[in-house]
Amino acid sequence: IAKEVAKLLEMKAQLGGDEGKPKFVLKTPKGTRDYGPKQMAIRERVFNAIISCFKRHGAEVIDTPVFELKETLTGKYGEDSKLIYDLKDQGGELLSLRYDLTVPFARYLAMNKITNIKRYHIAKVYRRDNPAMTRGRYREFYQCDFDIAGQFDPMIPDAECLKIVHEILTELQLGDFVIKVNDRRILDGMFAVCGVPDNKFRTICSSVDKLDKVPWEEVRSEMVGEKGLSPEAADRIGEYVQLHGGLELIEQLLQDPKLSQNKLAKEGLGDMKLLFEYLTLFGITGKISFDLSLARGLDYYTGVIFEAVLLQQQNEHVDELLGVGSVAGGGRYDGLVGMFDPKGRKVPCVGVSIGIERIFSILEQRLEATEEKIRTTETQVLVASAQKKLLEERLKLISELWDAGIKAEMLYKKNPKLLNQLQYCEDTGIPLVAIVGEQELKDGVVKLRIVASREEVNICRENLVEEIRTRTSQP
Amino acid sequence: IAKEVAKLLEMKAQLGGDEGKPKFVLKTPKGTRDYGPKQMAIRERVFNAIISCFKRHGAEVIDTPVFELKETLTGKYGEDSKLIYDLKDQGGELLSLRYDLTVPFARYLAMNKITNIKRYHIAKVYRRDNPAMTRGRYREFYQCDFDIAGQFDPMIPDAECLKIVHEILTELQLGDFVIKVNDRRILDGMFAVCGVPDNKFRTICSSVDKLDKVPWEEVRSEMVGEKGLSPEAADRIGEYVQLHGGLELIEQLLQDPKLSQNKLAKEGLGDMKLLFEYLTLFGITGKISFDLSLARGLDYYTGVIFEAVLLQQQNEHVDELLGVGSVAGGGRYDGLVGMFDPKGRKVPCVGVSIGIERIFSILEQRLEATEEKIRTTETQVLVASAQKKLLEERLKLISELWDAGIKAEMLYKKNPKLLNQLQYCEDTGIPLVAIVGEQELKDGVVKLRIVASREEVNICRENLVEEIRTRTSQP
Repeated sequence: IAKEVAKLLEMKAQLGGDEGKPKFVLKTPKGTRDYGPKQMAIRERVFNAIISCFKRHGAEVIDTPVFELKETLTGKYGEDSKLIYDLKDQGGELLSLRYDLTVPFARYLAMNKITNIKRYHIAKVYRRDNPAMTRGRYREFYQCDFDIAGQFDPMIPDAECLKIVHEILTELQLGDFVIKVNDRRILDGMFAVCGVPDNKFRTICSSVDKLDKVPWEEVRSEMVGEKGLSPEAADRIGEYVQLHGGLELIEQLLQDPKLSQNKLAKEGLGDMKLLFEYLTLFGITGKISFDLSLARGLDYYTGVIFEAVLLQQQNEHVDELLGVGSVAGGGRYDGLVGMFDPKGRKVPCVGVSIGIERIFSILEQRLEATEEKIRTTETQVLVASAQKKLLEERLKLISELWDAGIKAEMLYKKNPKLLNQLQYCEDTGIPLVAIVGEQELKDGVVKLRIVASREEVNICRENLVEEIRTRTSQP
Repeated sequence: IAKEVAKLLEMKAQLGGDEGKPKFVLKTPKGTRDYGPKQMAIRERVFNAIISCFKRHGAEVIDTPVFELKETLTGKYGEDSKLIYDLKDQGGELLSLRYDLTVPFARYLAMNKITNIKRYHIAKVYRRDNPAMTRGRYREFYQCDFDIAGQFDPMIPDAECLKIVHEILTELQLGDFVIKVNDRRILDGMFAVCGVPDNKFRTICSSVDKLDKVPWEEVRSEMVGEKGLSPEAADRIGEYVQLHGGLELIEQLLQDPKLSQNKLAKEGLGDMKLLFEYLTLFGITGKISFDLSLARGLDYYTGVIFEAVLLQQQNEHVDELLGVGSVAGGGRYDGLVGMFDPKGRKVPCVGVSIGIERIFSILEQRLEATEEKIRTTETQVLVASAQKKLLEERLKLISELWDAGIKAEMLYKKNPKLLNQLQYCEDTGIPLVAIVGEQELKDGVVKLRIVASREEVNICRENLVEEIRTRTSQP
């Protein structure tokens, strides 16, 4: 009975409402999360690495609204369109939350008649997908996009996008990775020579896209069963999509009696060869795999496509929890801007999108495992007092420090205990304490305590700012 | 006739659809805008100033989702609730876009049972208001919020919030400003002694809030006409709300025979006196005005309230276009977190929100007026070639530079003309050009050109990175 009563009391406590307050669920919406100070510290590290890389490659930055006219997004995402969040019709325009940053970018280019830009854009996008939050799959998540728009000589911007993915994944030290590369024209040429009817290219492409998650047999039966492809065509595709390699595979396929007869495939393979030459100059072919099973889900790609996959985690804990997955992807979309231009004028584009959430998950769990303590503030000094009735002196001193650009805090108490003030520094990692006491005030000094060593030195008030700067400057 | 034909042709061109393409409007949603690279450069300057200030005061940073459960926002905004954007019901939870960052912060505190935090949060919020975009009023706009939550001795955190507003507005050099301060308890006490019935406090408060936009006579007639207040009570309010000043006004009101009898007003005035003492220690009372007409629209304030107003623009151009307005506001809201706690446990909070859009508008228009050229990239060097057939050499060199952390660009052409490459540097402000030519390759050097002076020097390849760093390091 006692057990039952305890259970009931617990249920009552969960329901709340003891004081007649309205009951409601205290949570963030499904598939979303808050970022507390610790998570934000990790997030800012990752953003800094990514932004540094984008800036190193000379990118400008833009921003667009979180929602677009619904019609702007219509017809761009194929089967994924059902995942778009719509806003309620409250009178006025029909709006949807952005699904990625690529379509808003194309809309921006067409609207402003821009034919030449290299830009990055870091912002949240929204998908009504099935969330798997421990694996870093959310309904609200960041994309970090870098795109090059303009009419240029082939494969030079495309190679730079791959170089960027390589730089970022190396810098973030997420463990070993591979960047799979393919070309929509090679896929389409392959479908043609395998006997896929023209009108089935996109839907068969969607099936191929599932090969990173399900085995070929399942994909094959979807092609034949659901999508009505002939078993012979499916088997021919099956032979191609297990191929992956480097320059030698490209050469081999350029000699393939069937593929080499197809104009699209030949173009794609020629460009792929050029791409690999540039990647060799960049010294990164070791992590690049030309992979005929890579298809990418989105409708708008027209040329090179790629996807970066983490191969394994360095940390065993993480391995169990996370598995392995895609952290970046992109490709060439030469037709998308033209869809927005009233005259259909095209602006060739190629770009890459870094998926941050999965990277966060890995780093967050790695940090938890190592129990490394990370600071969530940058405070250099705590302004403290050794005796009572010194609030006014603390306020005067901290104001001087703030005005001199020093990062300073104080406890919001009239008469805090010195021990509590020192404890606050220990807890939050503040390296210095500036202590005012009656004697120090008389002598025109401040006692500066170094938290780590417990050393204390009296510093002339007029030299205090300089002393704090010196002692907290990064080497 | 020719004129009419031209008109018709123009209309046709506007409609587009020459090639049978579907017609659609190419725009961002009402009340929103894109930020191009130049606008983003201004925005980042402003954000950096604000974030530096928040960090100087020891704040941590958090982030919350762009939408909340609809019920989380219900009952927090009074008359403004009609301006909330709802998401369409697509199955699942009912969601709304956040209206400010304060309610999500309170929800975050209650949900995570946090009773003590100093945090900032910079993010977009959404209001279905009537936009006035040239004046910086948008439906999607940034708020930069700094809040202190916790049970502390009175007015210490409140004074710090005002210090922060003062620091940021001084730093941004937006011209002269004043920070108006009042207290909800003084307002409520004033309403009581003027004979406003208890149940009319909030609605009369809303009327007083309009005093910064419309004259007293109009506000009075709204109180008496629409809201059914007695003319005598309105007139008594009218006498109080024209008062503004400093410490001497507080002293005077503490002696006011009616106000001093009211418990709430007395508490508010006592704290206001304490606040002014702390602000005197901070040396900022020169820009602070205790103003009895300040009411603030939102329901959740319980104590000190404040609002920063720009007094005039330094630039006459700007003056005409923008007028004058509020750029920051905030106050104490001791009851909001308790509204989310199942047991109603309170967490006292005080905070400030900086409104960025109006500040952007001012800086953007000021920049246009001065025709100052601002760089939108940070590229240090352009990798160029003097002759044809050197694409591979450029790719090799730029890859070396990127890997050494140098910000470098190249033109995406196989054989760009040297003149075009130099012109690109002029246009984008790149200070250096690293030129590879056949002779330089033979000699193992790179010709480094300083764009501003047109000086050219041959640099040993192995010293190039160091040379670029030295020449582009900030003094």
